[in-house]
Amino acid sequence: MLGACDSEWTYYPLFTIDVHQRLGTMHPRPFSLGIDFGTASVRALIVDTATGEELATAVVDYPSGQQGVILDDADPNLARQHPGDYVESLHRCVNAAVRQAGAVAGFHPTQVVGIGVDTTGSTPIPVDRAGAPLALRPEFKNEPAAQAWLWKDHTSHAEAAEITAAVTAQGLPYLAKCGGVYSSEWYWSKILHCTRTSPHVAQAAHSWVELCDYIPALLTGNTDPVRLARSVCAAGHKAMYHPAWGGLPAAELLDSLSPGLSRLRYSTTPCAADQPAGTLQRASAERMGLPAGIPVAVGAFDAHMGAVGAGCSPGTLVKIMGTSTCDCIVADLKKPLEDIPGVCGIVPNSILPGMYGIEAGQSAVGDIFNWFVNRIAPSAYGAPAEMHARLTEAAARLRPGESGLVALDWHNGNRTVLVDPLLTGLIAGETLATTPAEIYRALIEATAFGARTIIERIESYGVALERVVSCGGIAEKNPLVMQIYADVSERPMYISRSGLTCALGAAMFGAVVGGAHASALDAQRAMTGVKPEVFRPNPVAVAVYRRLYAVYKQLHDAFGLRGAAADLHGAMKELIAIRQLTRGER
Amino acid sequence: MLGACDSEWTYYPLFTIDVHQRLGTMHPRPFSLGIDFGTASVRALIVDTATGEELATAVVDYPSGQQGVILDDADPNLARQHPGDYVESLHRCVNAAVRQAGAVAGFHPTQVVGIGVDTTGSTPIPVDRAGAPLALRPEFKNEPAAQAWLWKDHTSHAEAAEITAAVTAQGLPYLAKCGGVYSSEWYWSKILHCTRTSPHVAQAAHSWVELCDYIPALLTGNTDPVRLARSVCAAGHKAMYHPAWGGLPAAELLDSLSPGLSRLRYSTTPCAADQPAGTLQRASAERMGLPAGIPVAVGAFDAHMGAVGAGCSPGTLVKIMGTSTCDCIVADLKKPLEDIPGVCGIVPNSILPGMYGIEAGQSAVGDIFNWFVNRIAPSAYGAPAEMHARLTEAAARLRPGESGLVALDWHNGNRTVLVDPLLTGLIAGETLATTPAEIYRALIEATAFGARTIIERIESYGVALERVVSCGGIAEKNPLVMQIYADVSERPMYISRSGLTCALGAAMFGAVVGGAHASALDAQRAMTGVKPEVFRPNPVAVAVYRRLYAVYKQLHDAFGLRGAAADLHGAMKELIAIRQLTRGER
Repeated sequence: MLGACDSEWTYYPLFTIDVHQRLGTMHPRPFSLGIDFGTASVRALIVDTATGEELATAVVDYPSGQQGVILDDADPNLARQHPGDYVESLHRCVNAAVRQAGAVAGFHPTQVVGIGVDTTGSTPIPVDRAGAPLALRPEFKNEPAAQAWLWKDHTSHAEAAEITAAVTAQGLPYLAKCGGVYSSEWYWSKILHCTRTSPHVAQAAHSWVELCDYIPALLTGNTDPVRLARSVCAAGHKAMYHPAWGGLPAAELLDSLSPGLSRLRYSTTPCAADQPAGTLQRASAERMGLPAGIPVAVGAFDAHMGAVGAGCSPGTLVKIMGTSTCDCIVADLKKPLEDIPGVCGIVPNSILPGMYGIEAGQSAVGDIFNWFVNRIAPSAYGAPAEMHARLTEAAARLRPGESGLVALDWHNGNRTVLVDPLLTGLIAGETLATTPAEIYRALIEATAFGARTIIERIESYGVALERVVSCGGIAEKNPLVMQIYADVSERPMYISRSGLTCALGAAMFGAVVGGAHASALDAQRAMTGVKPEVFRPNPVAVAVYRRLYAVYKQLHDAFGLRGAAADLHGAMKELIAIRQLTRGER
Repeated sequence: MLGACDSEWTYYPLFTIDVHQRLGTMHPRPFSLGIDFGTASVRALIVDTATGEELATAVVDYPSGQQGVILDDADPNLARQHPGDYVESLHRCVNAAVRQAGAVAGFHPTQVVGIGVDTTGSTPIPVDRAGAPLALRPEFKNEPAAQAWLWKDHTSHAEAAEITAAVTAQGLPYLAKCGGVYSSEWYWSKILHCTRTSPHVAQAAHSWVELCDYIPALLTGNTDPVRLARSVCAAGHKAMYHPAWGGLPAAELLDSLSPGLSRLRYSTTPCAADQPAGTLQRASAERMGLPAGIPVAVGAFDAHMGAVGAGCSPGTLVKIMGTSTCDCIVADLKKPLEDIPGVCGIVPNSILPGMYGIEAGQSAVGDIFNWFVNRIAPSAYGAPAEMHARLTEAAARLRPGESGLVALDWHNGNRTVLVDPLLTGLIAGETLATTPAEIYRALIEATAFGARTIIERIESYGVALERVVSCGGIAEKNPLVMQIYADVSERPMYISRSGLTCALGAAMFGAVVGGAHASALDAQRAMTGVKPEVFRPNPVAVAVYRRLYAVYKQLHDAFGLRGAAADLHGAMKELIAIRQLTRGER
């Protein structure tokens, strides 16, 4: 196989450069550029590789669709993006950041030593023989199937079920690393759906390229789909690529799903993000206001680079907390690691080179709080914008256990550890005196219990998790949530120093391929940090939450596991006992 | 034993009078007076004994406390009433009704042939040797323990537990008819608590008289506590009096709880309400504007007389639906009837003479809807007063099963069939799209499932329940609730024609003791009826509700029964399957 890089599963840095030598003494500060493609916009961040200081940042929204997403009124599962949006937004955004940095004393574009890229995913794009997205051609411009298939497009749910069934029926190992279920959000489901429903697009597609691979290809000009650098993060977590079964999934499986599908398997060995995809080509460089020739790193998914930017390292779990939660963990590649049942993905080098990247997550966290605030709770707490603050304030006055409530955080199914979309929310323990603040707190606690379940599962397979670093809006804005997570998980909760961890993580890999750091771990030590405020477990709360968690676990197993022993007779009485204990009732 | 009546457990009418002979031909229409003592007010109703036509009605609020109830800020369990309120309100209220009726052509006070009385209960009042409430004496006027202990006073919960423990430990049968648990709301709990906490009141009390016995005693002047007529309804449902164990509970039991307590056992054989307590004494007659000498019936509890007024008869369940629900059923005394586990009370003659009176109930129904509307749901649906209507409107547009929700109606514990106050509410099946109207409907359905559980339990003991007549505010105001109850219970739901069923039931017993009818059943046939609108089960809804009820029952047993087999793994999936079926989802 050909490849722009050829990393094996154990990490070997390909080259290092003496940055100061390259830049000369006139320019003592090397900077790197991180480019973060989110769901609605792209962000560019210029950062000091020595300190992580964020020099300049710019955001550009995608112009098409609704907040950048092309929707279909007739099909709520459809979510696409126009590849042209990426190209335009990319150049404008980086240009704005470079111009902004230019106003800072001591910065010059020539000091940018490397570029890193992260994007949403799995967001595959059908491309032609030259690697150009089909949607850039006039005849496919308005064809939905020719656009980028955004991560949250669920049109392919039937094909996902079909793939899961086929892999399972044929006794193949390809789902062992992703909880046993292939998702409608992933590479092969989407391609198969396109083959079935838009054969003219499928036939015109010479290949499919993940967005996180398309951007480095675009920046470097190495767009040839046969040769371009592919991300091991996308390959391993979404495309059934894994060294455990020799890399690619079997052609027979794919061709049994659709004849010829196997031709869309990767033709290069996927790489970790500390490898260069190439160097910045002149056309892009000019539009962005940078010199050509800057090394560009192989891309990766936003959550994973965000985890690196937040300090994900052995023993440190990074939680990216938003509407849902993505949990990233790394474990030394040199130590054996069993498959962890119910964990979304275990892929060598996918987060940090030289380590297993382990991804877990909760399918709804902030979404549950928003559901309660926007749909259910009374406006006595004010307009929705104020309600989170006021409900949080009221919930913070409650002591753990005093409401007598316990909830299950499955309003959007359960991603880890049950891997079951056919699960729903539950709240137990209501009385006629139950208040919205009590329910709000119970929902927060439920997500914390869900987080603890993930931590316990991963630790039970020998991966120690001593501390948690969180990033994302909830972590930054809601100290109550952080304290509850500390009390429930019995671990200190830190918050990432940077609020732009994805772009920062990308910039760190830019710094590595640019030679400012020898490794991603070195870059992490220099460029990341946590905020001074740490949330530490409160022993009184810990004691109550251990009892409440036992009830949560009882419900979790009863509703979530087939054949669990589940006499729930004591559950409500235990909640009342905890409530009475907390309130000092007779 | 002495008694104003001496009915045995089989019904024998003591006397009948030819009413037309007594009234003469000048006054062809015999009327009766029903007096209904509620929690906040007393109502008098004058009704035509031939047709049930309601001629006049008046209501007088009790002047003391908050809406008639004396509360204690320091103890939320305390709820008392001032006996003087009863005396004053009684006379003013009847007087107002009589004057109102006087304006109707064809009415004359001499046409009132009988008086019936119903009250709340168990509401015992400590009285002196002459039968006068202690609270009417200056030295006890402001003494809380000397007042009437209103039904909902829960200060005696420890004593209730003590009585339950003692009866159980001594292997006595006294709780076999009331679900195995003695309540803090009942006669002996309250007296024992008074003995323990206010011994000066307990010592001054020559006896304790239920409110439903005190009013007839007051009206007739037969107040001597040794001789006054006592209601078998109060005795059997609240005071451990039952023919199955020879009537009174053993003196040894009571004296083991508190020495000398057994002296407060009833000294007359309790009577059914078709027996006369005496005749109207001159002093009361003059204040009320009626002639002296009118027969006054033995009293009973409001719910039971309300059931009679709504048409409770063999095969017809009467549901009195308000904040909570009281279910009344009768069964032929001549047929053997086993104890029905989990049913609140089975007492011969307590509802209708000649029949077992069976009482069941749900500890919260309207209260659950009010909790959701007043505390939880958004005011997008308007002010609380409008919200019930608007949420009902929105909930009515939903089809059974389409929300994917199921709830347990235990926000105030479970009275029947689990008899467990340490149970709480639950709602399962929430998604991020769940709406307040869906939750509101799920809560209505939960109370309907609770109602079905009661019906199934009673029918499984050989008591057929072919139709349901409801009365109370919810039944009259909310057709959606009625339709859901019909669909879930698979029985036609009727609504009582009268909105004043308690007072009407009392008036019917007045008509019997006044000789206008030979029996309560005769009075019922003549004086009660249902509204023309009948809610009949809809077969499509019935099919869905059978599946939903199976999930409810699974949760009910898992959380409510010790040692139940309770693998709940399928519960949420079944809810989703029902939802998808109903919505026609793929």
